[in-house]
Amino acid sequence: MLNDCTPDLLSALDEARPGLLRAVAPRDVEEPRGRWRGLAGAVACPRNTAEVAAIVTACARARVGIIPMGGGTGLVGGQVMPGGPAPLILSLERMSALRAAYRDENVLVVEAGMILADVQAAADGIGRIFPLSLASEGSARIGGNLAANAGGVNVLRYGNTRDLCLGLEAVLPDGSIFNGLKRLRKDNTGYDLRHLLIGSEGTLGVITAASLRLFPKPAATVVALLAVPDPRAALDLLALAEGELSGLISAFELIHRMGYDFLAQTMPEVAVPLHPIPDWSVLIELGLPQGVAPEEAMAGLYAQAAEVGLVLDGVIATSAAQAAGLWRIRESIPEGNRRIGAVSSHDISLPLSEIPGFIPRAGAALAALGDWRINCFGHLGDGNLHFNVFPVPGRSRKAHDHQRDAIKACVHDIVHDLGGSVSAEHGIGRLKVADLERYGDPAKLAAMRAIKAALDPLGIMNPGAVLRG
Amino acid sequence: MLNDCTPDLLSALDEARPGLLRAVAPRDVEEPRGRWRGLAGAVACPRNTAEVAAIVTACARARVGIIPMGGGTGLVGGQVMPGGPAPLILSLERMSALRAAYRDENVLVVEAGMILADVQAAADGIGRIFPLSLASEGSARIGGNLAANAGGVNVLRYGNTRDLCLGLEAVLPDGSIFNGLKRLRKDNTGYDLRHLLIGSEGTLGVITAASLRLFPKPAATVVALLAVPDPRAALDLLALAEGELSGLISAFELIHRMGYDFLAQTMPEVAVPLHPIPDWSVLIELGLPQGVAPEEAMAGLYAQAAEVGLVLDGVIATSAAQAAGLWRIRESIPEGNRRIGAVSSHDISLPLSEIPGFIPRAGAALAALGDWRINCFGHLGDGNLHFNVFPVPGRSRKAHDHQRDAIKACVHDIVHDLGGSVSAEHGIGRLKVADLERYGDPAKLAAMRAIKAALDPLGIMNPGAVLRG
Repeated sequence: MLNDCTPDLLSALDEARPGLLRAVAPRDVEEPRGRWRGLAGAVACPRNTAEVAAIVTACARARVGIIPMGGGTGLVGGQVMPGGPAPLILSLERMSALRAAYRDENVLVVEAGMILADVQAAADGIGRIFPLSLASEGSARIGGNLAANAGGVNVLRYGNTRDLCLGLEAVLPDGSIFNGLKRLRKDNTGYDLRHLLIGSEGTLGVITAASLRLFPKPAATVVALLAVPDPRAALDLLALAEGELSGLISAFELIHRMGYDFLAQTMPEVAVPLHPIPDWSVLIELGLPQGVAPEEAMAGLYAQAAEVGLVLDGVIATSAAQAAGLWRIRESIPEGNRRIGAVSSHDISLPLSEIPGFIPRAGAALAALGDWRINCFGHLGDGNLHFNVFPVPGRSRKAHDHQRDAIKACVHDIVHDLGGSVSAEHGIGRLKVADLERYGDPAKLAAMRAIKAALDPLGIMNPGAVLRG
Repeated sequence: MLNDCTPDLLSALDEARPGLLRAVAPRDVEEPRGRWRGLAGAVACPRNTAEVAAIVTACARARVGIIPMGGGTGLVGGQVMPGGPAPLILSLERMSALRAAYRDENVLVVEAGMILADVQAAADGIGRIFPLSLASEGSARIGGNLAANAGGVNVLRYGNTRDLCLGLEAVLPDGSIFNGLKRLRKDNTGYDLRHLLIGSEGTLGVITAASLRLFPKPAATVVALLAVPDPRAALDLLALAEGELSGLISAFELIHRMGYDFLAQTMPEVAVPLHPIPDWSVLIELGLPQGVAPEEAMAGLYAQAAEVGLVLDGVIATSAAQAAGLWRIRESIPEGNRRIGAVSSHDISLPLSEIPGFIPRAGAALAALGDWRINCFGHLGDGNLHFNVFPVPGRSRKAHDHQRDAIKACVHDIVHDLGGSVSAEHGIGRLKVADLERYGDPAKLAAMRAIKAALDPLGIMNPGAVLRG
């Protein structure tokens, strides 16, 4: 059993390391969807890894829970503890330094509190890219991205956050420091603790620094927004593009008409250059090497796809401003959704070939529960859809609160049946603990519990996240 | 404490599942370098996952160790137990089926006993590539490749084996079956048991099947063998190539003159088309999309590199036969080494920028121990060198047996000092247990031991591999 974060613990920490603590601010205990408010005794803001280790050691001794905190942008409540003994929040906000840049190695070594956009900028500053890119990049911190194995729009080409990490430094639940900041592409020396910590959402330790993989900038990029007949055609277009341009497709995003409708209603300043507005469309970005003319490559793909009926209409950006305009449409869709107000949002992934069947099947199953507007969009190239359910016009989301669990179960049951995942890129946090119990493989869950008990026998690390406490 | 594999256990297994067992053959207890002979009570050859689970359950009950066996091609003794209570060998040789092929998803689902070359052929049969490629691909089995997280020649572009695996099925040490054969690019539902099992060398469970990532075939490939002034120039050439052709370099292999000398001596039929024979050279393969002329791309790179002195000489293959001839040189080097007979071989990796300093530093340190011939070659693009030490002409390797440990420590100490790995792609097995204890991060080692104890409390899975039993 854990204890409340006591004044005794706090004064001992403050005495040993003056200036370590600050009072809890509202933003420390909120999460972006406003579903929960967290509890916290105080916020500890360590300045270095030794201080993180001292905090963890003190909390272990006092049996006080720790919430590791990055930018607080997670969407599944991994960063807020709404009940139980008040934990200490361990914020990485002061550990935001670039420790080293190795241009020739395509590596950055950064502290966990560095904001994702700053990581991107540091890479850009040495003529490289760090390809992790997601809506909250202006406030998300890289340690949180690693803890959650964040996804985003460039996974198709560059992988998830775990694929962008060569090494980690972390403080384990017993206060020991894992010095694993390797800069190696190959290292087969024992169990991969890095991959175990990545995606464990702060329940097995506190990530304090990471070595990150950078990539050369493509010589040129080109973006297009293409209308397609349906999701199956979109997947066929993806296969066509991969056949021609394997490894060069940086993003392949599906957009449904509902997304455009919501934008027209809530953010009319976001112009959509397709008329008529198509039911389905995809945003494609190619990142091309020297010797391939970008607009010609995209136009060639367009022509081939149009010839076989995979593309009905489209625009190819011919300037950086046009490319940014197309991206702005895609990136505004989540904000449009927020302004409309979803009854239930689903961050799901499916085997690619199951997607064309899933969308109508889920729509039909939901229709049995009522009338809805569905906005199905996302990272089609990764099989990752955001399948979000909204009230029909004139009805409020509040009116459907009692149906949220039924909607979620309806969607998740179908996803599970098709071999998909009920959390593609957002993680489990506290929101999906019951989903993990319901859909997770029993042998995997037993192994997870055994690993948690082995590495964090006191249960102090992010209690109640991922696994029930 | 474990027990010997007893006649009682074997007859119980045989009665429950007739035909499951076979006698131990010499090849079951040998390893390619002939350093050890293993012990074994019998070989169990399950036909399906349920039989694997039954074997593991019976061994757990009887406290008998299990050696999971793929092709037996591992180079660190992970597949042979030279002492202690005789284990049961669990060979996946009968579980070699292709379970399913998903061409549209770029996925194969295969059983663990499938030979790597057969996996490659199955991918080729549906117009795709499975890029894992290594010397023993004709006999290595994919389950062993996964257990060892094998590397090979295409890591630069496609990653290590772990990067090519979307999902696993495995039998855990308690006999439970982990059903994790996902075909998803994104799945953030709890700790990544897949990545924990991959690279754990059979010490945490028996991999029984995997879903594997395939890739579209490049529209064209081109291979060149280029003479470079030194390793630093080779790395500069790599950076130049990545700047121009990011993501399209399939292989970038370093070859030292010693490799050619050994080939001339032991396999003179392998023709080297460079005259004079250069001290250092690289074999580059590009895999290119539509619209990029392969020979022009390579010739352009050659010209640019030559202009700034990074390339001194070279040949670009202009036919598939010529390309195969260049690859044959690279692929014959390990056999040439075997015929000469190394005193000590080292499978190391380094941060890329440390490589030019490492090679002379290690050479100088070894010179203090005696006179040697050093063949330093390998996957330069991954920072992975095979740094192998041979006697001078006229001396036998036997004469240096007493120096092997000193040589190894000399090389490994420098590698460790430079932030490198003492096992880049071969793993720990039983050969490098002491190295892992010496060079491994203490917090990581403690976590590994805790995980091993949590998942395999009886210690039956590949006892003594990776971690001391």
